[in-house]
Amino acid sequence: MNYQQIMKSYQLIRNLEETLALLEWDQAVYMPKRGIQSRAEKIAFLTEIIHSKYLDDDFYISLYKLYEGPDFKDFPFQKQKEIEFLIYLLVKKRKIPANLEIELARTKALAQDEWEKARETGDDREYKKLLIKIIDLKIRYANTIGYKNNPYDALLDDYDPNLKYSFIAPLFEELKGQLVEFIQKINKSSVTINTDFLNKSYDVQKQWDFGLFILEQMGIDLESFRQDYSVHPFTTNIGVFDVRITTNLKENNVMDGFFSTIHETGHALYELGVCEALEYSPCANLLSLSLHESQSRFYENIVGRSRGFWEHYFPHIQKVFPQNLEQVKVEQFYQAVNQVKLSPIRIEADEVTYNLHILLRTEVENKIINGTLKVMDLEEYWNETTKSLFDFYPASKKEGYLQDIHWSAGLFGYFPTYTLGNLISAQIYQAMQKDIPDLVNFSGDKFTKIKEWMKAKVYQMGNMYSTEELVNKISGENLKSDYFMKYLDDKYQDIYQL
Amino acid sequence: MNYQQIMKSYQLIRNLEETLALLEWDQAVYMPKRGIQSRAEKIAFLTEIIHSKYLDDDFYISLYKLYEGPDFKDFPFQKQKEIEFLIYLLVKKRKIPANLEIELARTKALAQDEWEKARETGDDREYKKLLIKIIDLKIRYANTIGYKNNPYDALLDDYDPNLKYSFIAPLFEELKGQLVEFIQKINKSSVTINTDFLNKSYDVQKQWDFGLFILEQMGIDLESFRQDYSVHPFTTNIGVFDVRITTNLKENNVMDGFFSTIHETGHALYELGVCEALEYSPCANLLSLSLHESQSRFYENIVGRSRGFWEHYFPHIQKVFPQNLEQVKVEQFYQAVNQVKLSPIRIEADEVTYNLHILLRTEVENKIINGTLKVMDLEEYWNETTKSLFDFYPASKKEGYLQDIHWSAGLFGYFPTYTLGNLISAQIYQAMQKDIPDLVNFSGDKFTKIKEWMKAKVYQMGNMYSTEELVNKISGENLKSDYFMKYLDDKYQDIYQL
Repeated sequence: MNYQQIMKSYQLIRNLEETLALLEWDQAVYMPKRGIQSRAEKIAFLTEIIHSKYLDDDFYISLYKLYEGPDFKDFPFQKQKEIEFLIYLLVKKRKIPANLEIELARTKALAQDEWEKARETGDDREYKKLLIKIIDLKIRYANTIGYKNNPYDALLDDYDPNLKYSFIAPLFEELKGQLVEFIQKINKSSVTINTDFLNKSYDVQKQWDFGLFILEQMGIDLESFRQDYSVHPFTTNIGVFDVRITTNLKENNVMDGFFSTIHETGHALYELGVCEALEYSPCANLLSLSLHESQSRFYENIVGRSRGFWEHYFPHIQKVFPQNLEQVKVEQFYQAVNQVKLSPIRIEADEVTYNLHILLRTEVENKIINGTLKVMDLEEYWNETTKSLFDFYPASKKEGYLQDIHWSAGLFGYFPTYTLGNLISAQIYQAMQKDIPDLVNFSGDKFTKIKEWMKAKVYQMGNMYSTEELVNKISGENLKSDYFMKYLDDKYQDIYQL
Repeated sequence: MNYQQIMKSYQLIRNLEETLALLEWDQAVYMPKRGIQSRAEKIAFLTEIIHSKYLDDDFYISLYKLYEGPDFKDFPFQKQKEIEFLIYLLVKKRKIPANLEIELARTKALAQDEWEKARETGDDREYKKLLIKIIDLKIRYANTIGYKNNPYDALLDDYDPNLKYSFIAPLFEELKGQLVEFIQKINKSSVTINTDFLNKSYDVQKQWDFGLFILEQMGIDLESFRQDYSVHPFTTNIGVFDVRITTNLKENNVMDGFFSTIHETGHALYELGVCEALEYSPCANLLSLSLHESQSRFYENIVGRSRGFWEHYFPHIQKVFPQNLEQVKVEQFYQAVNQVKLSPIRIEADEVTYNLHILLRTEVENKIINGTLKVMDLEEYWNETTKSLFDFYPASKKEGYLQDIHWSAGLFGYFPTYTLGNLISAQIYQAMQKDIPDLVNFSGDKFTKIKEWMKAKVYQMGNMYSTEELVNKISGENLKSDYFMKYLDDKYQDIYQL
């Protein structure tokens, strides 16, 4: 195979993986209930075919020949990175037995269905059986891929290449100390924030329309994008110029749905931005989830929970819901969407306490994959850790360990990227402020400027740099928690008069 | 391969074909516009993979060994039929060069997109280029498959195995004479039917809800089914217990959308009924489209345009749209939904003139595939034939040769099955009347009885009998136009006092 033929083999794999993404999107969004068995079969069959393509020796050997050939060093940078990325991917994929991939794919499809049922009914017996199976398969996966110190590292690598638990653990430990102290300070504040008006009845269709208005403001191209409903919001890439998000709106909690929508829109802007710059290149694929979450969390929090954003957009939302918001001042609204409060649901959490949810999950995942926590003890461990971190027990499984879809979808190792994303977003923001004057003011074409900046610094890089390399390239420093803590400090000092 | 392994190979193909169906469904229903290039690639890649599975020699040889083996005659009937069907399918598929399948798949995907654009803008230049390509590929396909007298036969076979133009042509010619004479009689009638109230403003959401109410009445299991919007309504099978229809509702034409919904629901009941009886068997696959259309047209016309149906359901629709229907009597409504009028759009036509639309298309297709009509002359030929059959010229391309999606989707040879379906539905109805007393009365559980009858006589047969065999089995006679003409005669004599 020459370079063109290699790229064609890659295109085939990528198109099949995106077809798999459509099967999964459809399952979460539109599939009739009784279609699940047949859907799981399709996902398993397609996974088998994709895996067989990764095992093609000619593909692998041809890549290596290019990589070790005399011309490699003269290739353009992107071409070098494409080859390196494909080798990284193939080395990994070729270690995995087909049976394991197929069994995992089928079990995940069934488990997501059982997860939805368990949430509805509270009866999690069937779900637990499948979760045990997924964890068993994930541990086998980690052992197959291999690792130096911790099997969990083999899973982290799937979401952020080369990420290690030994990097995360001290960083998160330090952050935990900083956050606990910070939350205590806030708890002592005499400022009380009224959020009652956010829990009045908000017409869901109007919420939907306002969300669409904002995401257009953010610079989404509606011809490459769509939004639908699902139990758990997510973003998926179905193809070049076909990126989709989902949301979940509640009549009595207008801001949950809103922040979920702009969170996913942050992901979608990233995917579409990479796609615009790199189209079918392998460098547009499997982006670091930490960088991905830095994009979603940047738009959700640093933009979407900023005073500047609401100074501009509060009159708009006020006009959509006059009955609920006519009497509310923009400053009250700004405070309400930034109330810091220990609460049970991760995706509804404020940006301070949010990270405690992630620390809990990261710890649980590490224990599960290391075999020191079993599914039969998971719920109790979850509840006790919640009690110690949040000072309450979850009111139900749905508000406890069943709240996230991730484990049913086999996503062990994904959670830490949310907090890494938070840290990165603050570090990026710091750099952005130097380049974009008056960044807090959203009255002009600020979203266009932010998008252009992201394009230059993040989007067009695709997967050509590791998370750490890119953070360094953008900020001139290694990833650390200081920028994030400083961002929180500046913001909440003002809100809570600390 | 033993029987089990053969079945597994078949399952793989079927699941991949249903995945292809999801890619196509999504393209028609939800895909963002700019996703089209990437979607066409996916469809082409998946088609290539499916085709390679059909080419597997082991699969083919193992099937033949079973077929020619000493035990074949002792196999249960269904097992024999499964093997025969798979051999029929493989013999055909293995003749087709992979390139042809792939090119056709890709071109169809792009052409459907251009067809939608051409309808919107009236500019059909890009669409025509793709249509020329599709026709060229279809002719190559016919030549590859082979035929005795007419290349069109090779295409008809895809929709109804063994159907020949030499069978259709005289049947349709006879029907044409009968219909033209019948329409002349109706035109001479002094009865005038008022349909104005059907063209008032009908809230689209309420139309949607009423459609859902009726299809539940018809016996659809909503957990195996869904309905969405698309430009051109269709039914598709995404998997076992995952059947989907689309509809297209218009504010000012309430009955078009309604009849389209129950037409597609007839298809869906058939697919789900076959699925319930035969699940993953090859005998549940590639059902005769003539039988399929007999089901959809039965529910649309023989049921949905009957006096008995509206005597029961008119009070329901009246309650949904009191402003428009309060003053209307059930007999007026019954007459209005049965007005016979030569009109430009096939899917909006009454059940009498409908067949003239099909005769036109069948004639055009036969000429195109025989090379005696070229795309550059198609529009003019269409318009002139419309003038001679309907006595008017289409007002636009959209009301003319661009009205149907079929050719852009490569469906040459499908159209005749609509009229065959009409004839079959009347012949089936004749037999059903003997078994179900008081068939015209819909006040009890009539839909359940009809569904059970269809299950016993049609659904559970899957593809085990040819269209002709099944018609004979059910009615004791060959397929002919007499029952259909008698049905029309009885019904319209009364309405138009002929």
